[in-house]
Amino acid sequence: MNTFGNIYRLTTAGESHGPALVGIIDGMPAGVVVDRESIDSYLALRSPGRAGVGSSSRKEPDHVEILSGMIDGQTLGTPIGFIIRNQDAHSEDYEHLAHAFRPSHADFTYHMKYGIRDYRGGGRASARETALRIVGGSFALAALLKYNVRVMAFTTQIGSVRLTRPLTELDLGDQGANIWQYTMRCPDRDTNERMEELVQRVQESGDTIGGVITCIINGLPAGIGEPVYGKFQAQLASAMMSINAVKGFDYGMGFDGVNRLGSEMNDPFVLDHQGHITTLTNHSGGIQGGITNGRAVVCRVAFKPIATLMREVETLDENGNKVILPARGRHDSCAVPRAVPVVQSMAAMVALDALLQAQSGKI
Amino acid sequence: MNTFGNIYRLTTAGESHGPALVGIIDGMPAGVVVDRESIDSYLALRSPGRAGVGSSSRKEPDHVEILSGMIDGQTLGTPIGFIIRNQDAHSEDYEHLAHAFRPSHADFTYHMKYGIRDYRGGGRASARETALRIVGGSFALAALLKYNVRVMAFTTQIGSVRLTRPLTELDLGDQGANIWQYTMRCPDRDTNERMEELVQRVQESGDTIGGVITCIINGLPAGIGEPVYGKFQAQLASAMMSINAVKGFDYGMGFDGVNRLGSEMNDPFVLDHQGHITTLTNHSGGIQGGITNGRAVVCRVAFKPIATLMREVETLDENGNKVILPARGRHDSCAVPRAVPVVQSMAAMVALDALLQAQSGKI
Amino acid sequence: MNTFGNIYRLTTAGESHGPALVGIIDGMPAGVVVDRESIDSYLALRSPGRAGVGSSSRKEPDHVEILSGMIDGQTLGTPIGFIIRNQDAHSEDYEHLAHAFRPSHADFTYHMKYGIRDYRGGGRASARETALRIVGGSFALAALLKYNVRVMAFTTQIGSVRLTRPLTELDLGDQGANIWQYTMRCPDRDTNERMEELVQRVQESGDTIGGVITCIINGLPAGIGEPVYGKFQAQLASAMMSINAVKGFDYGMGFDGVNRLGSEMNDPFVLDHQGHITTLTNHSGGIQGGITNGRAVVCRVAFKPIATLMREVETLDENGNKVILPARGRHDSCAVPRAVPVVQSMAAMVALDALLQAQSGKI
Amino acid sequence: MNTFGNIYRLTTAGESHGPALVGIIDGMPAGVVVDRESIDSYLALRSPGRAGVGSSSRKEPDHVEILSGMIDGQTLGTPIGFIIRNQDAHSEDYEHLAHAFRPSHADFTYHMKYGIRDYRGGGRASARETALRIVGGSFALAALLKYNVRVMAFTTQIGSVRLTRPLTELDLGDQGANIWQYTMRCPDRDTNERMEELVQRVQESGDTIGGVITCIINGLPAGIGEPVYGKFQAQLASAMMSINAVKGFDYGMGFDGVNRLGSEMNDPFVLDHQGHITTLTNHSGGIQGGITNGRAVVCRVAFKPIATLMREVETLDENGNKVILPARGRHDSCAVPRAVPVVQSMAAMVALDALLQAQSGKI
Repeated sequence: MNTFGNIYRLTTAGESHGPALVGIIDGMPAGVVVDRESIDSYLALRSPGRAGVGSSSRKEPDHVEILSGMIDGQTLGTPIGFIIRNQDAHSEDYEHLAHAFRPSHADFTYHMKYGIRDYRGGGRASARETALRIVGGSFALAALLKYNVRVMAFTTQIGSVRLTRPLTELDLGDQGANIWQYTMRCPDRDTNERMEELVQRVQESGDTIGGVITCIINGLPAGIGEPVYGKFQAQLASAMMSINAVKGFDYGMGFDGVNRLGSEMNDPFVLDHQGHITTLTNHSGGIQGGITNGRAVVCRVAFKPIATLMREVETLDENGNKVILPARGRHDSCAVPRAVPVVQSMAAMVALDALLQAQSGKI
Repeated sequence: MNTFGNIYRLTTAGESHGPALVGIIDGMPAGVVVDRESIDSYLALRSPGRAGVGSSSRKEPDHVEILSGMIDGQTLGTPIGFIIRNQDAHSEDYEHLAHAFRPSHADFTYHMKYGIRDYRGGGRASARETALRIVGGSFALAALLKYNVRVMAFTTQIGSVRLTRPLTELDLGDQGANIWQYTMRCPDRDTNERMEELVQRVQESGDTIGGVITCIINGLPAGIGEPVYGKFQAQLASAMMSINAVKGFDYGMGFDGVNRLGSEMNDPFVLDHQGHITTLTNHSGGIQGGITNGRAVVCRVAFKPIATLMREVETLDENGNKVILPARGRHDSCAVPRAVPVVQSMAAMVALDALLQAQSGKI
Repeated sequence: MNTFGNIYRLTTAGESHGPALVGIIDGMPAGVVVDRESIDSYLALRSPGRAGVGSSSRKEPDHVEILSGMIDGQTLGTPIGFIIRNQDAHSEDYEHLAHAFRPSHADFTYHMKYGIRDYRGGGRASARETALRIVGGSFALAALLKYNVRVMAFTTQIGSVRLTRPLTELDLGDQGANIWQYTMRCPDRDTNERMEELVQRVQESGDTIGGVITCIINGLPAGIGEPVYGKFQAQLASAMMSINAVKGFDYGMGFDGVNRLGSEMNDPFVLDHQGHITTLTNHSGGIQGGITNGRAVVCRVAFKPIATLMREVETLDENGNKVILPARGRHDSCAVPRAVPVVQSMAAMVALDALLQAQSGKI
Repeated sequence: MNTFGNIYRLTTAGESHGPALVGIIDGMPAGVVVDRESIDSYLALRSPGRAGVGSSSRKEPDHVEILSGMIDGQTLGTPIGFIIRNQDAHSEDYEHLAHAFRPSHADFTYHMKYGIRDYRGGGRASARETALRIVGGSFALAALLKYNVRVMAFTTQIGSVRLTRPLTELDLGDQGANIWQYTMRCPDRDTNERMEELVQRVQESGDTIGGVITCIINGLPAGIGEPVYGKFQAQLASAMMSINAVKGFDYGMGFDGVNRLGSEMNDPFVLDHQGHITTLTNHSGGIQGGITNGRAVVCRVAFKPIATLMREVETLDENGNKVILPARGRHDSCAVPRAVPVVQSMAAMVALDALLQAQSGKI
């Protein structure tokens, strides 16, 4: 299954070292202005070598070519087909991997599933596929603007370094615009610096480290999301768990809420300045019973350290023989900063999909 | 959207205080023996008043009536239609809620989505719907036996009381059979007792408390799950996040893995006694690149304390007027033990669905 | 796959001689008044022994029990669960069929697919399942009223007897209300009589005969339907081809248009009395490029004669041995009149589904 | 909805005069050898100017570029992304259509649905999209070979010229290989000639003409297809009705069976040479109760004459003003021969999809 979403749907194809990545967006509303060059800028935020320290040295300009679904800079309502060529792929770097299974990579599981695999750069399992999600996110974000919905994502933890300052004190700029000025995508100068130092140390030791990205969706009206099996949080969890290296998801008080009493967690209803019903607090993370309540949707996404170390590794090949993999390839020591726009894109696609679904339900 | 799954699909209907809950299971393989009475026994494990202290005093015998899809105790391959009548519903208990929004319940969000709602006992948003998932899980577990796949779930945390003993020291019995002997579904006598004491204290204060359920799927072969958007963990996360009161999900090292280095987390490949490739450790939780690797799939599900307190509550009604809700109704102070078979059932459905999907992909 | 539709979805279960038929309607908009008793009246139009001559003598009162999704006669937006009990099933009539394959029935194909089957009354393959579609159609028709969309179906051919009078001369009443007064559901007294005579003759000879039902959807606005793979006509064809005994579908000029020149078939654009663009003729049957153009959607559905004859039949059993099946059971000699409300119901569900889908696509 | 299929799924994008057509095939089994150049040859059979008389003079070499999902000429099991560039598009030919609605084209309905449209060459509504289906069909046909399933399609009617010779007397070659030698794709020399003469006459008069394509699927085992809503014939009908200009579908005896008695139509069971159960005749067209019976699946697809005439046409523009469209553009006078590989491709995709689905249902 290489399609994501219900009404707004992204279908992707492409291996890391094949000729190109290919995507098709279905369900994009007509009449939305989307600027191709701003997609390239957004892609650059995910690119290796752009998101500060700790990222792979692979240089891929990541230029998207839009092949359909637009006329004169506006969407047609028909599907958006697009490709991103793979240009800086050094496939010869990977030939020693043709028959070996790298530990904690998907080499072995793809082999067991398909009996054949593209071993170059992780093939389809490579996080390179997420470049296509950035394009899907770009169109979704453009459509969400028409609903006054904004999505932002930022790093709140790298290893043991946590962002502890409250949201209101962060340097988010207008709807998160300032986040990209921070190398680690942590909008607090001091914490960002400490994260950067940690990643530098980890990189020098040839090791890797994970982290947590927090994502906030502002402006969703109350009443979005499906009860029972299409709960907004279920769609969001599924979206985030589909990102490479993600191992956990929670929203609202999440895992931390386990230690609290019910009486500490309830969100009392109050009237806002305009006399509309809202909640005083937002422990619930903007969702009740799978449906948005009009408050910000707040969730967290946990990333493990990526599996490729810059060290020699002993492992097995397809025949069960021991092989030694040299310390080669170009890899991130911390993928979290590069994943920030991916998390933002996935959240944008979920939000737009849910908004469009909600429209279908009413007479 | 009231359907769950791709090949093995459960569709449900039913409000908490309507005439009955209704379910249809589609995609159940033919020729599997399923015993109706054992489903009732399994339903009893979820029933209020059965799972030890802290549960609602509502007495609902929960008898499933199978209406189709079986002949002579065997499945036909055609859809299984079934109903569970609602018998002990005291709807008059809820009339004071017809126009009021209980804090942190779905009253407000259903009102905003549909403009009309069944206010009795939470209507469709009530966890009563999960009884149908137990039936879906029963059939899935029966089919999984043919694949030698077993699923178990148990409580590993209530409030601040955590199970710390390693898995190998727990009283799981054969594939978790012993778990049901423990009131809190924590298969360690001492921890279970401390959990029970905590819940008792919380209940006496009219408050509520949450917890964590761990779920383990044993016996899945390598190669199950879809890469990219239908990753096994994404399906599992979506399943768990669709359960009432669930706020978080992780698998493998999950959120705890954020603090570890990559070098500590990798799972080296080794040969097992039969010369098959497996991994020495299982930090990955049985999945790489969205596809199972043959090791146990291990995940955690976080439950918030349920929102209904046994206390008077001040809130707003549909017109924004203040109302006081008396301390009434019959509610759990800790829903976690009753949720254990629900988590198990959802995991079983995901596992069977993924197994059936994997079959479709091969020539 | 026992689910039909995308947004408005009907899932069904139930064998002909099992305890009950079970259905769940998902995606029904909230706030629509639906009268349970009028559904029973509609069900009666499909019942054996009601639709004039030529129908099975099985007497099944077909009483629908709505179990969820409604409060005070209004829909809640949550799924509608319902059952229809099987009451007049004489299963002992079918025991001689436990191992025999009736020619041109689904006995053999179900056996080959599932390895097990419910041989009583055709099991899941019986047209009895269509009673559930009538319920799905009832709710859809109620919702369509809010859009001013009306659906009508009537018999236009039985064997060689064709309705030749133009639509405008038929006794349709208000939106087809008069159709049910005609035994064969042909709203032209003379043709209906000739059809009835033909069916009588066929019945007396122990044989069966097929026919054609024409269906018209009025009031759909222009712009409904999806281009390319979800074309309105593709959804409609799929709906109709899923009805028992249907062998053909066409719309607009259909198969007859093959003999015409393009210059005879085009529908010129003109302005209507209100100055809106419409077409002078409707050779296209209301659809261009898969999307409605605002004119009536007109389609035809071809039914074969049903396979069960009131004659002794020689056939094979599961082991390839010859068996003689006596002339037993209760069967229609012409199913077409009873199928008219089924065709109407399927068209209504397709129309509502497409309307709801169209809503989701716009900002 | 721009995706077709359930397990084997084709998603397409692309306007007739945009930069390229884009497709993604999902669910293609791994390890199948597919030759890119043979896809180009197959594409040529659909190309304008190749399929004999009566076709548009647009010269489009239609070269497919495979961008993913293959390694060393074999499929990987991952999605196949591919593009076909639009090279011979004379967009300036269409500027007079920017605001005019051509009769019986999709200009008006796209305008009503999206409020914006690509007027060049019919945009997304152009039959040019079917080139992508040929690619989807190519991969499906390659996979079907592994199941010994063969699909053939040929012209059986153009206007009033019908193929009347029985199947066994046709020049089909091995599994239809000879069909492509006939200009009209009618594998009977005399009938093909008469069809060609008819098309020539129609073309000279600036008019257009339709026809019927018959499609046969050989080698499908018994037990393929889903009962009730995913009936094999429903999937097939939906596939065919999604092709441009198709107005009707039937299978087995189809519309002709309406005039027959049940006693003439039944297919008696007999034993074949190997002692397996089969049917003596095949009036059913290979399907009972939605499931294949092991006999050939036989269906017919009716095409209307295409709407564009080589004559001046008076019509309306977006404002309801009269406009005269000159006799321009490059168009087919009979699209049927070019549609033969499209029908074959759609049938192949349906057959493979159903085979893969059937595998998922068994333990």
